[in-house]
Amino acid sequence: METQGKVITCRAAVAWGAGDALVMEDVKVDPPQRLEVRLRILFTSICHTDLSAWKGENEAQQAYPRILGHEAAGIVESVGEGVEDMKAGDHVIPIFTGECGDCRVCKRDGANLCERYRVDPMKKVMAGDGKTRFFTSKDNKPIYHFLNTSTFSEYTVIDSACVVKVDPRFPLEKMSLLSCGVSTGVGAAWNVANIQPGSTVAIFGLGAVGLAVAEGAKARGASKIIGIDINPDKFPLGREVGISEFINPKECDKTVHERVMEITEGGVEYSFECAGRIEALREAFLSTHSGVGKTVLLGVHASPQLLPIHPMELFQGRSITASVFGGFKPKTQLPLLFTQCLQGQLNLDLFISHQLPFNDINKAMQLLHQGKALRCLIRL
Amino acid sequence: METQGKVITCRAAVAWGAGDALVMEDVKVDPPQRLEVRLRILFTSICHTDLSAWKGENEAQQAYPRILGHEAAGIVESVGEGVEDMKAGDHVIPIFTGECGDCRVCKRDGANLCERYRVDPMKKVMAGDGKTRFFTSKDNKPIYHFLNTSTFSEYTVIDSACVVKVDPRFPLEKMSLLSCGVSTGVGAAWNVANIQPGSTVAIFGLGAVGLAVAEGAKARGASKIIGIDINPDKFPLGREVGISEFINPKECDKTVHERVMEITEGGVEYSFECAGRIEALREAFLSTHSGVGKTVLLGVHASPQLLPIHPMELFQGRSITASVFGGFKPKTQLPLLFTQCLQGQLNLDLFISHQLPFNDINKAMQLLHQGKALRCLIRL
Repeated sequence: METQGKVITCRAAVAWGAGDALVMEDVKVDPPQRLEVRLRILFTSICHTDLSAWKGENEAQQAYPRILGHEAAGIVESVGEGVEDMKAGDHVIPIFTGECGDCRVCKRDGANLCERYRVDPMKKVMAGDGKTRFFTSKDNKPIYHFLNTSTFSEYTVIDSACVVKVDPRFPLEKMSLLSCGVSTGVGAAWNVANIQPGSTVAIFGLGAVGLAVAEGAKARGASKIIGIDINPDKFPLGREVGISEFINPKECDKTVHERVMEITEGGVEYSFECAGRIEALREAFLSTHSGVGKTVLLGVHASPQLLPIHPMELFQGRSITASVFGGFKPKTQLPLLFTQCLQGQLNLDLFISHQLPFNDINKAMQLLHQGKALRCLIRL
Repeated sequence: METQGKVITCRAAVAWGAGDALVMEDVKVDPPQRLEVRLRILFTSICHTDLSAWKGENEAQQAYPRILGHEAAGIVESVGEGVEDMKAGDHVIPIFTGECGDCRVCKRDGANLCERYRVDPMKKVMAGDGKTRFFTSKDNKPIYHFLNTSTFSEYTVIDSACVVKVDPRFPLEKMSLLSCGVSTGVGAAWNVANIQPGSTVAIFGLGAVGLAVAEGAKARGASKIIGIDINPDKFPLGREVGISEFINPKECDKTVHERVMEITEGGVEYSFECAGRIEALREAFLSTHSGVGKTVLLGVHASPQLLPIHPMELFQGRSITASVFGGFKPKTQLPLLFTQCLQGQLNLDLFISHQLPFNDINKAMQLLHQGKALRCLIRL
């Protein structure tokens, strides 16, 4: 590549302040350093974590200027020293929570929060040297990184531990969905809850993650999948992914868990909280069957509240656990997921509700913010 | 047996009011009905759940007169209609949480809160006909049952689902310990936490249950077991069961979890809350290593507090779960535990700190209440 080892100037969408429209501008992208790779991003989409960072909901996490974005797919432009599992031209997806392969967590089955490259909304520079690889083209001011990835840019630099190779025969625009939302939902169903055939499931919140949980539950042979959302516009798509019963809490004459108990004769085996609402979390917990119930927490709860569960309620044989990236170890376990998607175990197409060019990224942010889009695929 | 089918009059320790000394008196014990067995109790001991019921800590659970007691061992005197897995003369231990073998929970691996005979502190009569089998000898007033067992009596009637047979070659006085406390602790280590060899463990509260957790952890090959208690008198016995480091929160110049982090380079894999203190619960949670930590709740938390954990803290890869009877399915899984104890995998002797005759049961209650006894074995 003629760009290898050189600074690349390219277009990026830069966040300059909490809630301000992203600014499309030229930025300089340094070459990758040791154990880093530089990617050309071809597709990216927007997830609620980007929205939350853009709005600056958590002051401690604010850092400007910054390049957001973490759900994406692209091609390796060049690799830094020591990178042996990738080369220029490889198809890849970035992952916001990495896998070094060597720490206490990576070496353990059933755990995926790598000690070195785990998701960290406070992190804004590269792990290797504590510096950024992005600079403004005008005055060479550093631009901060986001979630190990920063994909709202034509080129980005990422630790190789946070990049997963994709078979070049697979369609990259769909694989992009697996770099966050869909994997998070499907993995929660498969790895974290470990849904068994014939069991019953309740999903609170029918955004992209909730629908991905439903797809995962259906693939595992769940006998009944109940979807709960205050927005009934989400029900038709829910039906497409296998949800058989719907509850709109605003139109229900009893509590949601009472209704779930009725439908399932005592509660579901698994419930998933994908709404990020504390009341939904308690309803999800109470919707499970005592003695066997598992609640998986996926929604983000920003306010400083305690878990709405009394310690003794755990003695009823109901448990609660959270899932980050669906429990997948990205480098080790995603290749199988790619194949399962290609084989048709999961339908990725329906998650792409909109498509827009990179210049319209602020419009894409608004679509998600207003609850009108599942995923808006942005082509760079 | 000449007593079969007849009412037996025998000695029992009857609770007549919250916190009142138990009264040793003659009671009448009806014959077992369908699917029930009548046991002659040979050994019983006192557990904190008995103390709590005796003090009447939870008003909703108060019922007098009542026969408390659930940790025991004895011999089948006679069986009711339909009981096929036991006969008169069999050695048995009663279990406060049964196993019908037929419900949704019993049919599921990894779950033990039988829907029909699960532990229920509100239950005070037999499941079959809603009546008691105990009556006062003076005026035939019903005396209530407790925790499916009521073992503070020379004879008691129990659902056969709540009775487990013991090989007659095994010493019954030791098997008695397995009917509650020791199984609860060991099972929490083996079934619920599933401790792996070489891992690190922190135990909050070094009563009988906490020490049983330590024995279970040692048997599983834990590399480091840390014991936490505000009473340093408990440390010597802790050392005997394999605890290698001790923390007295009253003499520690930092928080307990900070000290645990130091000792273990980032936290333990497993922590156990056996103290029934909400602060201990939070310290136990924070003492685990992020990404892999599991906290098991064993202590009883009577006050109406919420779990002292923020929802987002679950995203750090730490989980919390509770354990009832160590996750053991009593009828299916205890026979193996009996054998493991006999083979020396667990040392039961050290749990028996005192022995007293039945007439001194109030003294035994005080010994536990004052924290002076681990288990006081009462011979009937």
